[in-house]
Amino acid sequence: ARPRVGYFYVGTKTNEGILKFLKESPVKDVGSLPIVIAEGKSVYEAIVTLFLEDVGTIYVVKDAFLSGVISRKDLLKAAIGNKDLDTIPVEMVMTRLSHIIYVDSNESIYEALTKILTYEVDSLPIVNMHEGNKLEVIGRFTKTNVSRLLMEFVNGN
Amino acid sequence: ARPRVGYFYVGTKTNEGILKFLKESPVKDVGSLPIVIAEGKSVYEAIVTLFLEDVGTIYVVKDAFLSGVISRKDLLKAAIGNKDLDTIPVEMVMTRLSHIIYVDSNESIYEALTKILTYEVDSLPIVNMHEGNKLEVIGRFTKTNVSRLLMEFVNGN
Repeated sequence: ARPRVGYFYVGTKTNEGILKFLKESPVKDVGSLPIVIAEGKSVYEAIVTLFLEDVGTIYVVKDAFLSGVISRKDLLKAAIGNKDLDTIPVEMVMTRLSHIIYVDSNESIYEALTKILTYEVDSLPIVNMHEGNKLEVIGRFTKTNVSRLLMEFVNGN
Repeated sequence: ARPRVGYFYVGTKTNEGILKFLKESPVKDVGSLPIVIAEGKSVYEAIVTLFLEDVGTIYVVKDAFLSGVISRKDLLKAAIGNKDLDTIPVEMVMTRLSHIIYVDSNESIYEALTKILTYEVDSLPIVNMHEGNKLEVIGRFTKTNVSRLLMEFVNGN
Protein backbone atom coordinates (compact mmCIF):
# COMPACT_ATOMS: atom_id res chain seq x y z
CA ALA A 1 0.00 0.00 0.00
CA ARG A 2 1.33 3.47 -0.80
CA PRO A 3 0.49 6.51 1.26
CA ARG A 4 -2.08 8.90 -0.09
CA VAL A 5 -1.42 12.60 0.08
CA GLY A 6 -2.24 13.82 3.56
CA TYR A 7 -1.55 10.53 5.22
CA PHE A 8 1.68 9.18 6.56
CA TYR A 9 2.29 5.46 6.42
CA VAL A 10 3.34 4.38 9.87
CA GLY A 11 4.89 1.08 8.99
CA THR A 12 4.21 -0.79 12.20
CA LYS A 13 3.92 -4.52 11.78
CA THR A 14 0.25 -4.33 12.63
CA ASN A 15 -0.29 -1.67 9.99
CA GLU A 16 -1.86 0.67 12.54
CA GLY A 17 -1.38 4.35 13.14
CA ILE A 18 1.03 6.06 15.48
CA LEU A 19 -1.68 6.95 17.97
CA LYS A 20 -2.92 3.37 18.08
CA PHE A 21 0.66 2.17 18.48
CA LEU A 22 1.31 4.60 21.34
CA LYS A 23 -1.95 3.70 23.07
CA GLU A 24 -1.59 -0.05 22.71
CA SER A 25 2.13 -0.56 23.34
CA PRO A 26 3.21 -0.95 26.96
CA VAL A 27 5.84 1.56 28.01
CA LYS A 28 8.11 -1.27 29.16
CA ASP A 29 8.69 -2.15 25.47
CA VAL A 30 10.51 1.12 24.76
CA GLY A 31 12.05 2.17 28.07
CA SER A 32 15.74 2.24 28.98
CA LEU A 33 17.52 0.45 31.80
CA PRO A 34 17.17 2.10 35.22
CA ILE A 35 20.21 3.34 37.09
CA VAL A 36 19.77 2.73 40.82
CA ILE A 37 21.59 3.44 44.05
CA ALA A 38 20.87 1.97 47.49
CA GLU A 39 19.66 3.99 50.48
CA GLY A 40 22.58 4.70 52.77
CA LYS A 41 24.93 5.53 49.90
CA SER A 42 26.28 9.06 49.90
CA VAL A 43 25.41 12.06 47.77
CA TYR A 44 28.99 11.92 46.51
CA GLU A 45 28.48 8.34 45.30
CA ALA A 46 25.25 9.41 43.61
CA ILE A 47 27.11 12.18 41.76
CA VAL A 48 29.81 9.74 40.61
CA THR A 49 27.12 7.31 39.41
CA LEU A 50 25.35 10.10 37.53
CA PHE A 51 28.54 11.02 35.67
CA LEU A 52 29.66 7.44 35.02
CA GLU A 53 26.26 6.39 33.67
CA ASP A 54 25.58 9.74 32.02
CA VAL A 55 21.94 9.86 33.13
CA GLY A 56 19.82 12.72 34.41
CA THR A 57 18.05 10.78 37.14
CA ILE A 58 19.01 8.05 39.58
CA TYR A 59 16.49 5.88 41.42
CA VAL A 60 17.04 5.19 45.09
CA VAL A 61 16.08 1.71 46.27
CA LYS A 62 15.62 0.11 49.66
CA ASP A 63 15.42 -3.69 49.82
CA ALA A 64 15.15 -3.67 46.01
CA PHE A 65 12.08 -1.40 46.00
CA LEU A 66 11.84 2.23 44.92
CA SER A 67 12.12 4.71 47.77
CA GLY A 68 13.20 7.92 46.03
CA VAL A 69 14.43 9.74 42.96
CA ILE A 70 17.52 11.94 42.67
CA SER A 71 17.88 14.39 39.81
CA ARG A 72 20.83 16.52 38.70
CA LYS A 73 19.03 19.46 40.27
CA ASP A 74 18.76 17.70 43.64
CA LEU A 75 22.48 16.91 43.54
CA LEU A 76 23.38 20.42 42.46
CA LYS A 77 21.36 21.88 45.33
CA ALA A 78 23.10 19.51 47.76
CA ALA A 79 26.54 20.31 46.37
CA ILE A 80 26.33 24.09 46.76
CA GLY A 81 28.60 25.12 49.56
CA ASN A 82 28.76 21.61 50.94
CA LYS A 83 32.19 20.07 51.34
CA ASP A 84 31.23 16.79 52.96
CA LEU A 85 29.12 15.20 50.28
CA ASP A 86 30.50 11.77 51.17
CA THR A 87 28.88 11.96 54.60
CA ILE A 88 25.36 12.93 53.44
CA PRO A 89 23.10 9.95 52.64
CA VAL A 90 21.03 10.11 49.46
CA GLU A 91 17.83 9.94 51.52
CA MET A 92 18.51 13.51 52.64
CA VAL A 93 18.33 15.00 49.15
CA MET A 94 16.09 12.66 47.18
CA THR A 95 12.46 13.21 46.23
CA ARG A 96 10.47 10.77 48.33
CA LEU A 97 8.14 8.09 47.03
CA SER A 98 4.93 9.98 47.82
CA HIS A 99 6.00 12.77 45.44
CA ILE A 100 7.33 10.60 42.61
CA ILE A 101 5.52 10.41 39.29
CA TYR A 102 5.93 6.89 37.93
CA VAL A 103 4.40 4.69 35.27
CA ASP A 104 3.31 1.07 35.63
CA SER A 105 5.14 -1.20 33.20
CA ASN A 106 1.85 -2.17 31.55
CA GLU A 107 0.64 1.39 31.04
CA SER A 108 0.86 2.59 27.46
CA ILE A 109 3.55 4.75 25.90
CA TYR A 110 0.80 7.32 25.35
CA GLU A 111 0.02 7.45 29.08
CA ALA A 112 3.72 7.77 29.90
CA LEU A 113 4.16 10.60 27.39
CA THR A 114 1.10 12.34 28.82
CA LYS A 115 2.56 12.13 32.34
CA ILE A 116 5.91 13.52 31.23
CA LEU A 117 4.25 16.55 29.63
CA THR A 118 1.62 17.07 32.34
CA TYR A 119 3.97 16.89 35.32
CA GLU A 120 6.90 18.48 33.45
CA VAL A 121 9.41 15.79 34.41
CA ASP A 122 12.38 14.63 32.35
CA SER A 123 11.79 10.95 32.91
CA LEU A 124 9.60 8.41 34.65
CA PRO A 125 10.55 5.25 36.52
CA ILE A 126 8.84 2.23 34.97
CA VAL A 127 7.65 0.00 37.80
CA ASN A 128 6.01 -3.30 38.63
CA MET A 129 3.63 -3.05 41.56
CA HIS A 130 4.09 -5.65 44.31
CA GLU A 131 2.14 -6.52 47.45
CA GLY A 132 1.92 -3.68 49.94
CA ASN A 133 2.22 -1.03 47.18
CA LYS A 134 5.92 -1.78 46.82
CA LEU A 135 7.39 -0.63 43.52
CA GLU A 136 10.02 -2.64 41.68
CA VAL A 137 11.89 -0.39 39.24
CA ILE A 138 12.37 -2.20 35.94
CA GLY A 139 13.19 0.72 33.64
CA ARG A 140 13.02 4.40 32.88
CA PHE A 141 11.09 6.27 30.22
CA THR A 142 12.74 9.50 29.08
CA LYS A 143 12.33 12.29 26.56
CA THR A 144 15.22 10.65 24.70
CA ASN A 145 13.00 7.58 24.25
CA VAL A 146 10.26 9.88 22.95
CA SER A 147 12.64 11.61 20.53
CA ARG A 148 13.90 8.26 19.19
CA LEU A 149 10.33 7.06 18.76
CA LEU A 150 9.40 10.09 16.67
CA MET A 151 12.48 9.58 14.50
CA GLU A 152 11.63 5.91 14.01
CA PHE A 153 8.07 6.79 13.08
CA VAL A 154 9.05 9.29 10.42
CA ASN A 155 11.76 7.03 9.05
CA GLY A 156 9.25 4.22 8.79
CA ASN A 157 10.84 1.70 11.16
CA ALA B 1 -11.16 13.05 4.78
CA ARG B 2 -11.05 10.17 7.23
CA PRO B 3 -7.96 8.11 7.86
CA ARG B 4 -7.78 4.67 6.30
CA VAL B 5 -6.49 1.79 8.34
CA GLY B 6 -2.73 1.87 8.35
CA TYR B 7 -2.50 5.57 7.81
CA PHE B 8 -2.54 8.36 10.28
CA TYR B 9 -4.03 11.68 9.34
CA VAL B 10 -1.54 14.33 10.24
CA GLY B 11 -3.84 17.28 10.19
CA THR B 12 -1.36 19.96 9.21
CA LYS B 13 -2.91 22.83 7.34
CA THR B 14 -1.01 21.84 4.21
CA ASN B 15 -2.37 18.32 4.46
CA GLU B 16 1.12 16.89 4.38
CA GLY B 17 2.71 14.12 6.37
CA ILE B 18 4.70 14.37 9.57
CA LEU B 19 8.02 13.76 7.82
CA LYS B 20 7.31 16.48 5.28
CA PHE B 21 6.28 18.82 8.09
CA LEU B 22 9.46 18.10 10.06
CA LYS B 23 11.65 18.54 6.99
CA GLU B 24 10.01 21.72 5.76
CA SER B 25 9.37 23.59 9.01
CA PRO B 26 12.21 25.74 10.35
CA VAL B 27 13.22 24.86 13.87
CA LYS B 28 12.70 28.48 14.94
CA ASP B 29 8.93 27.92 14.59
CA VAL B 30 8.82 25.40 17.45
CA GLY B 31 11.70 26.36 19.73
CA SER B 32 11.52 27.83 23.23
CA LEU B 33 12.98 31.07 24.52
CA PRO B 34 16.72 30.93 25.33
CA ILE B 35 17.96 31.59 28.85
CA VAL B 36 21.25 33.49 28.73
CA ILE B 37 23.89 34.76 31.11
CA ALA B 38 26.73 37.18 30.34
CA GLU B 39 30.41 36.27 30.47
CA GLY B 40 31.90 37.52 33.70
CA LYS B 41 28.92 36.41 35.78
CA SER B 42 29.68 33.80 38.43
CA VAL B 43 28.96 30.10 38.53
CA TYR B 44 26.76 30.86 41.54
CA GLU B 45 24.67 33.28 39.47
CA ALA B 46 24.38 30.63 36.75
CA ILE B 47 23.08 28.10 39.29
CA VAL B 48 20.51 30.59 40.59
CA THR B 49 19.40 31.33 37.01
CA LEU B 50 19.08 27.62 36.27
CA PHE B 51 16.81 27.10 39.27
CA LEU B 52 14.76 30.26 38.75
CA GLU B 53 14.16 29.54 35.06
CA ASP B 54 13.93 25.78 35.57
CA VAL B 55 15.99 24.95 32.50
CA GLY B 56 18.66 22.32 31.89
CA THR B 57 21.01 24.53 29.90
CA ILE B 58 22.06 28.18 29.99
CA TYR B 59 23.72 30.00 27.12
CA VAL B 60 26.68 32.24 27.82
CA VAL B 61 26.88 35.39 25.72
CA LYS B 62 29.56 37.99 25.13
CA ASP B 63 28.57 41.24 23.45
CA ALA B 64 25.20 39.61 22.68
CA PHE B 65 26.77 36.67 20.82
CA LEU B 66 27.02 33.04 21.91
CA SER B 67 30.33 32.17 23.56
CA GLY B 68 29.48 29.05 25.57
CA VAL B 69 26.95 26.64 27.01
CA ILE B 70 26.53 25.62 30.64
CA SER B 71 24.63 22.47 31.56
CA ARG B 72 23.47 21.15 34.92
CA LYS B 73 26.33 18.68 34.72
CA ASP B 74 28.90 21.47 34.23
CA LEU B 75 27.51 23.30 37.25
CA LEU B 76 27.41 20.14 39.35
CA LYS B 77 31.05 19.41 38.50
CA ALA B 78 31.99 22.97 39.45
CA ALA B 79 30.03 22.84 42.70
CA ILE B 80 31.65 19.69 44.08
CA GLY B 81 33.88 20.68 46.96
CA ASN B 82 33.95 24.28 45.85
CA LYS B 83 32.85 26.85 48.39
CA ASP B 84 33.54 30.02 46.44
CA LEU B 85 31.18 29.62 43.50
CA ASP B 86 30.49 33.35 43.50
CA THR B 87 34.12 34.06 42.57
CA ILE B 88 34.36 31.64 39.61
CA PRO B 89 33.31 33.15 36.27
CA VAL B 90 31.07 31.06 34.02
CA GLU B 91 33.79 31.00 31.34
CA MET B 92 35.77 28.62 33.54
CA VAL B 93 33.14 25.88 33.51
CA MET B 94 31.23 26.36 30.26
CA THR B 95 31.57 24.35 27.06
CA ARG B 96 33.25 26.68 24.57
CA LEU B 97 31.87 27.70 21.19
CA SER B 98 34.10 25.37 19.16
CA HIS B 99 32.53 22.36 20.92
CA ILE B 100 28.91 23.49 20.86
CA ILE B 101 26.34 21.74 18.68
CA TYR B 102 23.86 24.34 17.47
CA VAL B 103 21.19 24.66 14.83
CA ASP B 104 20.66 27.55 12.43
CA SER B 105 17.22 29.11 12.84
CA ASN B 106 16.34 28.22 9.24
CA GLU B 107 17.36 24.58 9.50
CA SER B 108 14.46 22.16 9.70
CA ILE B 109 12.99 20.53 12.78
CA TYR B 110 14.10 17.24 11.25
CA GLU B 111 17.73 18.38 11.13
CA ALA B 112 17.52 19.62 14.71
CA LEU B 113 16.05 16.32 15.90
CA THR B 114 18.76 14.43 14.04
CA LYS B 115 21.46 16.50 15.76
CA ILE B 116 19.96 15.94 19.21
CA LEU B 117 19.95 12.17 18.69
CA THR B 118 23.32 11.98 16.89
CA TYR B 119 25.28 14.09 19.36
CA GLU B 120 23.28 12.91 22.39
CA VAL B 121 22.58 16.39 23.71
CA ASP B 122 19.51 17.50 25.65
CA SER B 123 19.01 20.70 23.71
CA LEU B 124 20.37 22.89 20.93
CA PRO B 125 20.77 26.66 20.79
CA ILE B 126 18.88 28.07 17.81
CA VAL B 127 21.06 30.74 16.23
CA ASN B 128 21.20 33.37 13.54
CA MET B 129 24.61 33.58 11.89
CA HIS B 130 26.12 37.07 11.63
CA GLU B 131 29.22 38.47 9.95
CA GLY B 132 32.44 36.96 11.25
CA ASN B 133 30.72 33.68 12.21
CA LYS B 134 29.11 35.34 15.19
CA LEU B 135 26.09 33.51 16.55
CA GLU B 136 23.05 35.33 17.86
CA VAL B 137 21.03 33.00 20.12
CA ILE B 138 17.33 33.38 19.37
CA GLY B 139 15.97 30.21 20.96
CA ARG B 140 16.51 26.69 22.18
CA PHE B 141 15.25 23.40 20.83
CA THR B 142 14.80 20.70 23.45
CA LYS B 143 13.55 17.16 23.87
CA THR B 144 10.53 18.74 25.55
CA ASN B 145 9.75 20.48 22.25
CA VAL B 146 10.09 17.10 20.52
CA SER B 147 7.78 15.41 23.03
CA ARG B 148 5.15 18.13 22.64
CA LEU B 149 5.37 17.85 18.86
CA LEU B 150 4.73 14.12 18.95
CA MET B 151 1.73 14.67 21.22
CA GLU B 152 0.36 17.34 18.90
CA PHE B 153 0.81 15.07 15.90
CA VAL B 154 -1.07 12.17 17.45
CA ASN B 155 -3.81 14.41 18.78
CA GLY B 156 -4.24 15.91 15.34
CA ASN B 157 -3.31 19.53 16.08
